[in-house]
Amino acid sequence: MPDGVGRLACGLDLGGTKLLGVVVDPDVPGAPLLEEKVATPAGGEAVLEEVVALASRLCERAADQFGEGVGAVGLGAPGLVDRRGTLRYGPNLPGVVDLALADLLRTRLERAVSVDNDATCAAWGEHERGASRGIDHSVLVTLGTGIGAGITVKGAVLRGANGFAGEPGHMVVDPSGPLCPCGRRGCWERYASGSGLGWLARESAQAGLAARVVELAGGEPEDVRGEHVTAAAAEGDAEALAVLKRFGWWVALGIANLVNVLDPGMVVIGGGLAEAGGLVLDPTRSAYRQLVFAADHRPDVPIVLAHLGGHAGAVGAALLAAARR
Amino acid sequence: MPDGVGRLACGLDLGGTKLLGVVVDPDVPGAPLLEEKVATPAGGEAVLEEVVALASRLCERAADQFGEGVGAVGLGAPGLVDRRGTLRYGPNLPGVVDLALADLLRTRLERAVSVDNDATCAAWGEHERGASRGIDHSVLVTLGTGIGAGITVKGAVLRGANGFAGEPGHMVVDPSGPLCPCGRRGCWERYASGSGLGWLARESAQAGLAARVVELAGGEPEDVRGEHVTAAAAEGDAEALAVLKRFGWWVALGIANLVNVLDPGMVVIGGGLAEAGGLVLDPTRSAYRQLVFAADHRPDVPIVLAHLGGHAGAVGAALLAAARR
Repeated sequence: MPDGVGRLACGLDLGGTKLLGVVVDPDVPGAPLLEEKVATPAGGEAVLEEVVALASRLCERAADQFGEGVGAVGLGAPGLVDRRGTLRYGPNLPGVVDLALADLLRTRLERAVSVDNDATCAAWGEHERGASRGIDHSVLVTLGTGIGAGITVKGAVLRGANGFAGEPGHMVVDPSGPLCPCGRRGCWERYASGSGLGWLARESAQAGLAARVVELAGGEPEDVRGEHVTAAAAEGDAEALAVLKRFGWWVALGIANLVNVLDPGMVVIGGGLAEAGGLVLDPTRSAYRQLVFAADHRPDVPIVLAHLGGHAGAVGAALLAAARR
Repeated sequence: MPDGVGRLACGLDLGGTKLLGVVVDPDVPGAPLLEEKVATPAGGEAVLEEVVALASRLCERAADQFGEGVGAVGLGAPGLVDRRGTLRYGPNLPGVVDLALADLLRTRLERAVSVDNDATCAAWGEHERGASRGIDHSVLVTLGTGIGAGITVKGAVLRGANGFAGEPGHMVVDPSGPLCPCGRRGCWERYASGSGLGWLARESAQAGLAARVVELAGGEPEDVRGEHVTAAAAEGDAEALAVLKRFGWWVALGIANLVNVLDPGMVVIGGGLAEAGGLVLDPTRSAYRQLVFAADHRPDVPIVLAHLGGHAGAVGAALLAAARR
């Protein structure tokens, strides 16, 4: 079978620490046919080599196992990806700036290639095969180390004029708030990401209000991170639950801001913190109605957990590539 | 000529104090063929009657003067207008809740009718005949007593799942900020609207830092409103210009939040405060680059004044009605 011809699609999700690749059949819903995960190397050259190597392996495996070619490769990359598929800026990939991923991959892989922001890919994955199936206007927010977002409008991804739509993590929601690495104060992700949860918990710990959380962190308040809060809360610790209540309020604030602007029919929460399930979702839902404009005059927007977990980005990247081919 | 048949379109813009109606030729760019303005009455019944009366008069005048019928009537209404054209909630129209404007007008006017949010209409007017012509992804913010917004995506208006997209005035941008009539604290329009400008100026006045502004307000700091600031600034008063610099920072903050989420190719500023021109635009532009995410890695977004002034909403309503007919 010649290269670049085939019904299947390969999708890759490039994270700060790992690179996940899948192969899916765009015409047949269900779990990925193949998947493989490798560590993300440092530097633009090495990232490109690793993406090419993983995609090539998956294409070969698909041909061997299913007798079916991979016709399109999609990549989700963390940061600002422009409409040509160039990663303009990726704060979580040190040393990577203005990397023409789509052009380079197209040459190397000899296949149709599309590159998008990782959360945009995840939003498309959830829209096609996950929580937001059938919802034309949707927002996915990924709560991880930072916050990413993908938006669908009229059943298609919203890329914006340059491809940079969906960076609500850097909405300023408190101009006198904590400094953000981006240089501003009080960006939403200072509060509503995993890093934000750690910060809220350290605030409580310094006030002597998070004994069990500090214990799980090894005894030092400054070592407290988000996962210590969710672990203590899962044990039923009241102080950890109080931190999560404040955290949910901040998550809800940003979601309400997004609903005021975009009026989606559903908000999907993904990313690492979605694994905490109701511990994050319940306080978010409780606070949301008080924070959105005119709650009494609009339908409630379902706020739900992502269905595809860590696969959403790679699956969405594959399906976007297949759709664009 | 039978009712409801004709090439022309009538558009009405319903404000808290006045109702403006125009007739346009959808196929011929240029100023409205006809226009007429009346006072907005109080209460849903009276509003409906006034809209019907004005639209009917304009349709008759068009037939008389141009021998051409009006085939479609569009209305822009302030507040949450759902996709059926029902005004669900209009805080600036006391006594008006859940008014099925489109259905009622369709029956009364015997023409194709469409009803949208007023700022959505204005965004469409600017997109078709004003500042944002040819710009597929655009945001218009109207800075008046409050803040309205209209969004275009891929060259079409963004209505969202329910029709409620574009209410950034109630993005919370400072949870410990001043109370908003909507019940929350620190909504963007507490700072970046005409009311917000008055509030910022009264803060300065109470600190003894706005002598000329207070003088123009008649001598009492608590009587200071936005127009006293722009008037003093137009005279070159340094303290008024300092207030406008703070004001522009807040305007820019919300615009930056919107750019982070939507990635428009242009931001248009309309509403009453746009009449202050550079006095508002210059400090907004200066502050914007510090407030948007990754300014060094994205093209500058032009922030410009609306071209159609007070006509944008009515013209846009007419053109939306014509396009939907």
